[in-house]
Amino acid sequence: MRKFLLAAVLSAAFSAPPIAAEAPKLLTPSDIVASSPASDWRRIAPKDLLVMDLAPDAAGKPRRVVIQLISAPFSQGWVDNIRKLVAARWYDGIAVVRVQDNYVAQWGDPDGEVAGKAKALPAGLKVMKDGDYAVADKSVVAAYSAGAKLKDSYASVASFRDGWPFAGSLQAIWPIHCYGAVGVGRNLSPDAGTGAELYAVIGHAPRQLDRNVAVVGRVIEGIENLSALPRGTGPLGFYEDPAQRVKLVSVRMGDEVPGLPPYEYLSTESQSFAAYAGKRANRKDDFYIQPAGGVDICNLPVPIRVVKP
Amino acid sequence: MRKFLLAAVLSAAFSAPPIAAEAPKLLTPSDIVASSPASDWRRIAPKDLLVMDLAPDAAGKPRRVVIQLISAPFSQGWVDNIRKLVAARWYDGIAVVRVQDNYVAQWGDPDGEVAGKAKALPAGLKVMKDGDYAVADKSVVAAYSAGAKLKDSYASVASFRDGWPFAGSLQAIWPIHCYGAVGVGRNLSPDAGTGAELYAVIGHAPRQLDRNVAVVGRVIEGIENLSALPRGTGPLGFYEDPAQRVKLVSVRMGDEVPGLPPYEYLSTESQSFAAYAGKRANRKDDFYIQPAGGVDICNLPVPIRVVKP
Repeated sequence: MRKFLLAAVLSAAFSAPPIAAEAPKLLTPSDIVASSPASDWRRIAPKDLLVMDLAPDAAGKPRRVVIQLISAPFSQGWVDNIRKLVAARWYDGIAVVRVQDNYVAQWGDPDGEVAGKAKALPAGLKVMKDGDYAVADKSVVAAYSAGAKLKDSYASVASFRDGWPFAGSLQAIWPIHCYGAVGVGRNLSPDAGTGAELYAVIGHAPRQLDRNVAVVGRVIEGIENLSALPRGTGPLGFYEDPAQRVKLVSVRMGDEVPGLPPYEYLSTESQSFAAYAGKRANRKDDFYIQPAGGVDICNLPVPIRVVKP
Repeated sequence: MRKFLLAAVLSAAFSAPPIAAEAPKLLTPSDIVASSPASDWRRIAPKDLLVMDLAPDAAGKPRRVVIQLISAPFSQGWVDNIRKLVAARWYDGIAVVRVQDNYVAQWGDPDGEVAGKAKALPAGLKVMKDGDYAVADKSVVAAYSAGAKLKDSYASVASFRDGWPFAGSLQAIWPIHCYGAVGVGRNLSPDAGTGAELYAVIGHAPRQLDRNVAVVGRVIEGIENLSALPRGTGPLGFYEDPAQRVKLVSVRMGDEVPGLPPYEYLSTESQSFAAYAGKRANRKDDFYIQPAGGVDICNLPVPIRVVKP
């Protein structure tokens, strides 16, 4: 039998419903998202999207990855650098150089380490530092820490605000590394990276990277164009054969791309999100027998969808 | 620059060390595993391995996936069924039929839902039930719950024993869905699956499946032959075009496979494992600035290696 098992958790909550033998008796998280009112959704400004067109695959199929850049108060220095790098067309022609299973896919200048061949960076990039990985402003920390919190293995505060997951303590708050998170490659501290080399998480959330590397966004469409790439066989998953690298043909801001569909996220301050989160923590529908009674923050992806015409 | 960033966490702890510009000043988790004494390692009996040879890829490269079956007290009824299915060569010729991003890759009989074409199962398979997903024997629960516990978003007890991660409460213990875990496809309860349809986790740990589906093992080698497959475009990631399915050419127990290398795992009761876990929770080495102060159980993979000659 081809079973419809595991029907329950669609990674994109707005995807097609599970194939069920009969009508669901109890709402699933996807049902809640699908029936949430339009007023609970927030438009993502195209200027906050990074649209990366990779070289087509072997069959000629286009490969687009759409990334939403993170909003204030997090990582804005690196985000500004990324905007400058796009404006300078710096990313055009670089490549995915590393794919490590259950960890990251990473793109950068393949000749970055070759003396005299590294691509020159545009002028005016901000120099970021270790202290910029988290936000320590007392009033911001107090505001972010005031609401409902999830039980978390890494931090005393784990919650959502303005559509983003974050963690924190009484002293600081910071963005976190969940599946699909995009971060900034760097060398050893005090180097904190510029944003010229980026990675996306393609495995179990590597939360040990929180506060050690800058999180600058998340993949909202086309993650499979990174996560299903062949794994590199060199140390750390670097491609050993340059022919394995996947070229970034063009990287543009969303407002430069004609025909880009409009995206929106489910407000993390909405009743719909609260109901969705509650259901994710306590599945009890046709397929589920035993509700978990909890959910970790990275197993609670913020629903994102293309606006229906 | 091609940076060596993110050098820290190798998914297989015994992999090559990070490419560092200078000698490490402080031990990494991989250093601890690499320097652990031979006496801290336990051999995995070949009879407890499932060796799945998929059809070679487009370039003719062999694709082998090696799965370690879980040990008592967990899921042994399904494990017995899997042994029977292998003995009957039932799996030979079935296929990977579903790959859903950040969730699972699943294999079964592609004609299972086609009337009159479903492959007959061997006689004598055990009929499992919902109660078998967890172990409620009081003395077993007490013994498993006695040791050190990790802070967990899903359960009051989260720990390791005999090389396996598990979770639990005062009433029961159960095996968990981490990256690479192998589970049993099923229809709606009271069906609990036979073991004829299996899946491997290829994304962030879907712990909501714990106690809802049977965990029967974990992939110890070749996970990339499942995790890097193209994602299915049908509902739930099923392949819409039968040509996309990947055939299982042969599935054998490890003791039937000539030349299979000897595998071992780091004893979860060893000092080395405790030191490794402590380092995973508190990275402070060349790359890491800010130790996390915690780690979730699925971000603490049990080190597994091929025995060096």
